[in-house]
Amino acid sequence: MSAETAYFDWNASAPLLPAARAAVDSALDAQANPSSVHGKGRAARQIIETARREIAALAGAAPEHVIFTSGATEAAAMALVPNFRMGRAPLRLSKLYVCATDHPCTLSGGRFAADDVMRFGVDSNGVADPDELSRHLSGHDNAAGLPLVAIHLANNETGVIQHLEAISKRVRDAGGLLVVDAVQAAGRIPLDLSRGLADFVILSSHKLGGPIGSGALVAATGLVMPVPLITGGGQEKGHRAGTENLAGIAGFGAAAANAVQSLDSIGAVGAIRGRIEELVVEVIPDAQFHGRQVERIANTTCFSVPGMKAETLQIAFDLAGVALSAGSACSSGRTGPSHVMKAMGVDSGSAVRISIGPSTSENEIAVFAEALRQIAGRRGSKAHAA
Amino acid sequence: MSAETAYFDWNASAPLLPAARAAVDSALDAQANPSSVHGKGRAARQIIETARREIAALAGAAPEHVIFTSGATEAAAMALVPNFRMGRAPLRLSKLYVCATDHPCTLSGGRFAADDVMRFGVDSNGVADPDELSRHLSGHDNAAGLPLVAIHLANNETGVIQHLEAISKRVRDAGGLLVVDAVQAAGRIPLDLSRGLADFVILSSHKLGGPIGSGALVAATGLVMPVPLITGGGQEKGHRAGTENLAGIAGFGAAAANAVQSLDSIGAVGAIRGRIEELVVEVIPDAQFHGRQVERIANTTCFSVPGMKAETLQIAFDLAGVALSAGSACSSGRTGPSHVMKAMGVDSGSAVRISIGPSTSENEIAVFAEALRQIAGRRGSKAHAA
Repeated sequence: MSAETAYFDWNASAPLLPAARAAVDSALDAQANPSSVHGKGRAARQIIETARREIAALAGAAPEHVIFTSGATEAAAMALVPNFRMGRAPLRLSKLYVCATDHPCTLSGGRFAADDVMRFGVDSNGVADPDELSRHLSGHDNAAGLPLVAIHLANNETGVIQHLEAISKRVRDAGGLLVVDAVQAAGRIPLDLSRGLADFVILSSHKLGGPIGSGALVAATGLVMPVPLITGGGQEKGHRAGTENLAGIAGFGAAAANAVQSLDSIGAVGAIRGRIEELVVEVIPDAQFHGRQVERIANTTCFSVPGMKAETLQIAFDLAGVALSAGSACSSGRTGPSHVMKAMGVDSGSAVRISIGPSTSENEIAVFAEALRQIAGRRGSKAHAA
Repeated sequence: MSAETAYFDWNASAPLLPAARAAVDSALDAQANPSSVHGKGRAARQIIETARREIAALAGAAPEHVIFTSGATEAAAMALVPNFRMGRAPLRLSKLYVCATDHPCTLSGGRFAADDVMRFGVDSNGVADPDELSRHLSGHDNAAGLPLVAIHLANNETGVIQHLEAISKRVRDAGGLLVVDAVQAAGRIPLDLSRGLADFVILSSHKLGGPIGSGALVAATGLVMPVPLITGGGQEKGHRAGTENLAGIAGFGAAAANAVQSLDSIGAVGAIRGRIEELVVEVIPDAQFHGRQVERIANTTCFSVPGMKAETLQIAFDLAGVALSAGSACSSGRTGPSHVMKAMGVDSGSAVRISIGPSTSENEIAVFAEALRQIAGRRGSKAHAA
């Protein structure tokens, strides 16, 4: 990255880590079908199984409970389904309860009919209310099937962390299953499926600095599994057919191994985020932060500039060399306010997100500071002219 | 590849082409979310759209009708569904008719209930019988919904090419939709969706020399589309959610561009295949070829050695440095005879597949010839001892 630009959009896609790039390169050199029984096929299989162990370690799960997918969205489509199996016996999950600030792939409800997807809300800080979830669950008709609950652990727009223990307890009390979207939390706060808080965790490679195109659904026990979304060959023990994305999985594994280690240095990322927020306050004193009052992952901050639309702000930053998001990338093709801000009750149209990482540099902070001053200057002169 | 080995398993996964590797490398350098509106996101979007045009050209389709997936298996799971849409109106496909020698991802029936999947057979050469398909279709209850027919264009185990014009006419006459799995045909025989023979074509990157983990469902017109399999963000115009596999798609595009050109030199591949078959006949005169009497793609041959199990033969070749398959890689983890041989009425347990490509070398042919002689020698001494 040149000194002229700042990449502050890690939550949309993190820069590819050198270790992940090296793993991708080796896997591309070894390209063969991991299901082939000849030597080259067996070597490819080794690459997949090494990555599986690395991802299991990140999730605190057993390697055999890692199911590779093409990304977090596919993992959500796989997990969010009314039909599960407990061994060979069918298990019915009759309704899906999702958090209003979940990612669109969760909000879409996967394979549930739209009428069977219920939303529970968040407070003005973006924290889900366990009591509201419990009210929903107390009305659940267990005779029709068990409740399935899905929630993100850290929000992609604000970084706000959900109270997983409280949510998990309510789901357990209702006899339900819990799917946790840990895409933005992984590598930023510890995940540990062995603690029994979630039944499934969703992970994405490219949010960890691995390549785009790989993700996983990780099961806590493997006793209860969703009916497969993609069928055909017997890959992934029948849970997900299709030749495994060898290079993508290799890079994902390397990124997961890095994510485990990077937890130790996450404080440094938080310190950079703190400096960025200080700069915002200094240059735009009336800027409003969203979710800053509660626990957040260390790399994310979300703020509004009164009187400026998010799109205007985003384009102004882009022209000044700073890549950041207005809302999440997945919804950025859409018009209208962010569903996250809306659920928080924030007069939304104006929130932008900055998301950084361990390699965020002094140069990038300087580029951002300069961009911020330019934008504040233009805003000031407009206000003056008005 | 060293002089000591021969990679004769291109139908399981083709070696990565240098041009595809270069495209993957560039895309990895440019990693960003293609939905991000900032400069890096727009650059990533450009990579995706360039690849889309390259794949459209291979399929003879319009770029806007290319839907990227994680591979052919996901594309089949997307296309094989009872619920389609014609614009916003629902369109019901009540039964799926598949060819007995189709790939497992087709035979599994996608999102159809098992009872709604019918199979039509092939003759002893592996060619589907249009009359048998017509008999099935004449019993179809159009009041319940239209028929959906799926067939592969070239078989992965034998290379046998299906009579697409005849099949297509029967499907049209019955008012049905036709999905063609062109995974093994692409780059080996011309594809042309503009001829109106198929409604959808399924493609895979890694069978063309692109990276594993990318594929596409290509629609002839886009007027009638399957209800999405994976929902969430609005990627691929809402037909397939999830951040696009940037590097995988870039490599797929380069491989597709190469496949268009490689049709001109496919005769040379056929000549190498001819030499390999001559070697087999010379060293093992009682070898039996499958599908050799009919039109095949130029890179594939399938044969049995009487008295030897396919697995034994495959392992013996592997030890001698030759990578080939007993059945297809996707089913190779499974026990039992190949469903393709079974459908052809071949006493199966003994067929192995050789699949080659434009870069198959003299050295590889020499390694194969030596391996073949070793195996024939051991077989001869066993026969003598018996």
